Amino acid sequence: MSTAAARLAFSRSCRALSGVFPDMEAVMAWFAAKDRRDRFEVRRASLAALDQWGFLPGPLRLGHRSGKFFTIEGIRVETDFGPIPSWDQPIINQPEVGILGLLAREIDGVLHFLMQAKMEPGNVNVLQLSPTVQATRSNYSRVHGGHAPRYLEYFTEPGLAEVLLDQLQPEQGARFLRKRNRNMVVLVSHDVPVHEDFAWMTLGQVKDLLTRDNIVNMDARTVVSLIPLADPDEPSDAARLEGLSPFRRDVYLSFCRSDRERHTMDAVMGWLTMGKAAASMRVSPLPLDGLRGWSVTEDAIRHETGLYFSVIGVDVTAHTREATRWSQPLLHHEGLGLVGFLCQSQWGVLHFLVRGSLEPGNRDGMEIGPTVACSEVAARSGRVCAPQFLEYFFDSALGAVRYDAVQSEEGGRFHHFQNRYMIVEISPGTVVDAPGHYLWLTLGQLWRMARHGHVNIEARNLLACLGAVERTP
Amino acid sequence: MSTAAARLAFSRSCRALSGVFPDMEAVMAWFAAKDRRDRFEVRRASLAALDQWGFLPGPLRLGHRSGKFFTIEGIRVETDFGPIPSWDQPIINQPEVGILGLLAREIDGVLHFLMQAKMEPGNVNVLQLSPTVQATRSNYSRVHGGHAPRYLEYFTEPGLAEVLLDQLQPEQGARFLRKRNRNMVVLVSHDVPVHEDFAWMTLGQVKDLLTRDNIVNMDARTVVSLIPLADPDEPSDAARLEGLSPFRRDVYLSFCRSDRERHTMDAVMGWLTMGKAAASMRVSPLPLDGLRGWSVTEDAIRHETGLYFSVIGVDVTAHTREATRWSQPLLHHEGLGLVGFLCQSQWGVLHFLVRGSLEPGNRDGMEIGPTVACSEVAARSGRVCAPQFLEYFFDSALGAVRYDAVQSEEGGRFHHFQNRYMIVEISPGTVVDAPGHYLWLTLGQLWRMARHGHVNIEARNLLACLGAVERTP
Repeated sequence: MSTAAARLAFSRSCRALSGVFPDMEAVMAWFAAKDRRDRFEVRRASLAALDQWGFLPGPLRLGHRSGKFFTIEGIRVETDFGPIPSWDQPIINQPEVGILGLLAREIDGVLHFLMQAKMEPGNVNVLQLSPTVQATRSNYSRVHGGHAPRYLEYFTEPGLAEVLLDQLQPEQGARFLRKRNRNMVVLVSHDVPVHEDFAWMTLGQVKDLLTRDNIVNMDARTVVSLIPLADPDEPSDAARLEGLSPFRRDVYLSFCRSDRERHTMDAVMGWLTMGKAAASMRVSPLPLDGLRGWSVTEDAIRHETGLYFSVIGVDVTAHTREATRWSQPLLHHEGLGLVGFLCQSQWGVLHFLVRGSLEPGNRDGMEIGPTVACSEVAARSGRVCAPQFLEYFFDSALGAVRYDAVQSEEGGRFHHFQNRYMIVEISPGTVVDAPGHYLWLTLGQLWRMARHGHVNIEARNLLACLGAVERTP
Repeated sequence: MSTAAARLAFSRSCRALSGVFPDMEAVMAWFAAKDRRDRFEVRRASLAALDQWGFLPGPLRLGHRSGKFFTIEGIRVETDFGPIPSWDQPIINQPEVGILGLLAREIDGVLHFLMQAKMEPGNVNVLQLSPTVQATRSNYSRVHGGHAPRYLEYFTEPGLAEVLLDQLQPEQGARFLRKRNRNMVVLVSHDVPVHEDFAWMTLGQVKDLLTRDNIVNMDARTVVSLIPLADPDEPSDAARLEGLSPFRRDVYLSFCRSDRERHTMDAVMGWLTMGKAAASMRVSPLPLDGLRGWSVTEDAIRHETGLYFSVIGVDVTAHTREATRWSQPLLHHEGLGLVGFLCQSQWGVLHFLVRGSLEPGNRDGMEIGPTVACSEVAARSGRVCAPQFLEYFFDSALGAVRYDAVQSEEGGRFHHFQNRYMIVEISPGTVVDAPGHYLWLTLGQLWRMARHGHVNIEARNLLACLGAVERTP
């Protein structure tokens, strides 16, 4: 499939609310039928009591007895960027590159994606939709000896499917140390057997699910965010604008009107390069019991203030066909964080206000983040340390809300970690005075930068939510 | 200056052999007048006798007593990529990000670049042309207290010049540990005082100098390589093809005929991602006296076979206006290496055969390299371990030589390190059977990948040499 053909197929699929499932009711009915939460028990457990997991010495960290999966380690952060010059924190170290993969297939002329109903212990609602494959390298090189995840072969064995997209993308730099995953979309031209936990959906159906709270998981969102809704390198096509609502029209044009970008791509690269060169962050390893402000007990690792997050343990029992039990630590988060983009029509095209984001787990310094990304604590507006532009997301007089839903972060590592995702459009006349580490980019520019791994996961997850067909109220 | 205006200005400048210097004779006369080698003495010295430099313990390495500049350290490399699974070597560790900057100005309607005649102790011919500024971070943050390099302020102080290009680019991954520099081009709209060691040249004049041996230094080449000769995002312009030789025409079209690319950009990213995921390389620190195959003496660090490179010391005396003396280690290389690109017209557009290149100093795994890059040892064709496709560069029956000159690597770190740079075009009919870690890319694709730091310095240095106006024989 040529690039142009793929773009066209993506864009058609994005407009399709009907496919193998005739409508959203059918999609939701299938999901509800899968959602038998009683088959998955998650019980809190003390860290000291976790099966196979425990504190390992030199320096003190939390890990699996086999040395596999991941460890939770301590770090000290020192930086000249942002208001806080130094802090200590636990962080997840999982040096492998995994695969997050969507299998695609054209059915009756419309591209469908094979979505998986997947239970994860950290999800508030246990079951969410994941991409076809979520595999760690241990999974796919089968060092554990166990079963390979279903459909994995389409992503790893050359010739079984056509690769439409394969990019290395960073994960949460505030919680993972240098973690990246391959984000892939591969196309099969033939029928594949569909296991009962999987179903073919159009991109439009997935986008519709993204307008609802906590259905599409983080791993699915990051892959979906990389699928372009229009081609930045193609002139815009009037026919494709037909029948779109004004905001979706603006979204489409923001992808492809590269002649109307406020900053050139050279200037965008220059801004990012300057940010990488100017801001520094030193991350040094520390034993978990040597972290300032954190207490380590047999039960959990907590911040003395009760804020930020804590490291807890869970025992999981899955009463599925293959009954399984395991224990693991999770990073527990209280309350709701906020991830928000401000956008505004500039030069006749929608631009998004991005912020240079420097976090301890970033592999290569500054990344491109959303306008606002903050935890529950900071999100309580009115606080002195509230992040810039927070007021736009809480005062309806300042802008029009274009997107607002609650989404979960990865339920295999995080416990009840939810963020409110918002996109707010401010009127063209409003002058926003943004410091130098902010920049206005079109969606086409964000997409081009994302392709090379420059856009962080919070920003990508929010971009994934764009492009849904509006439901008639 | 808009992107389109900048591209047009670059492209016009590239065609101009006349400017502030009316012709190449004037350029060469100026360079010859600067070239008073007797004012710069470089004497070999034993490592133990170097002023301020010496062996530092824990682990044993070579460094400056102040802890500044750079160190030469030992590493062990283990990899599943390439024919050699493990080796030890010394490597330069210089964790700072420096600036390689070209100052540009429009003079009589043609863009000129301020080139510096600069003496470096490692150059075979001492004097070469460097960019306007070569500054380490210590230089520009002035931690040493000394003079800031001339013209540095245009690259560091906002508002003094317009940034046309600012990118982080990797250096030699076989010799530097994770080293990168900002490559910058900035535009001034007013006159600046020109110091006697500097001169304004058109891009065409610099390209002409690049057809000659050892005049334009590595730092200048890497910046020049990032200046696009045409805009990949603009349709090709027939008017710009007028008067070009067939090969320059092909070079121009290879930049902008993005409709004729053999692989889509998604496929190119996929190929690179697959390479990064599939090939692994582990680099562990070792003391210099613990390296297998290397001997450390007071005089030098050498490989037991006498091959590869050695670490030597030099005492430098510069009889310039400000008389200066210093000592430093350099990496000495014998003979000539080869850096070569094969190109071929495919789908009506010139494509270049790139090779996935994994070297111990790479920050992020595989980079995009030239078809062939090898040291003097391997370049002796006929050897069993000769790299693939080497024969094309030595057998004139296999292709037409489009570029062939000897260029030096950075004379501030390397001693007499020269490579023969070659571009060979094979006829459209010839079928080249290349393994999976090779890929055919257009110049537009190479330029787009280079912008994000994916193209290694050997490939960039060779690309810089493209686009010269042919001299009439």
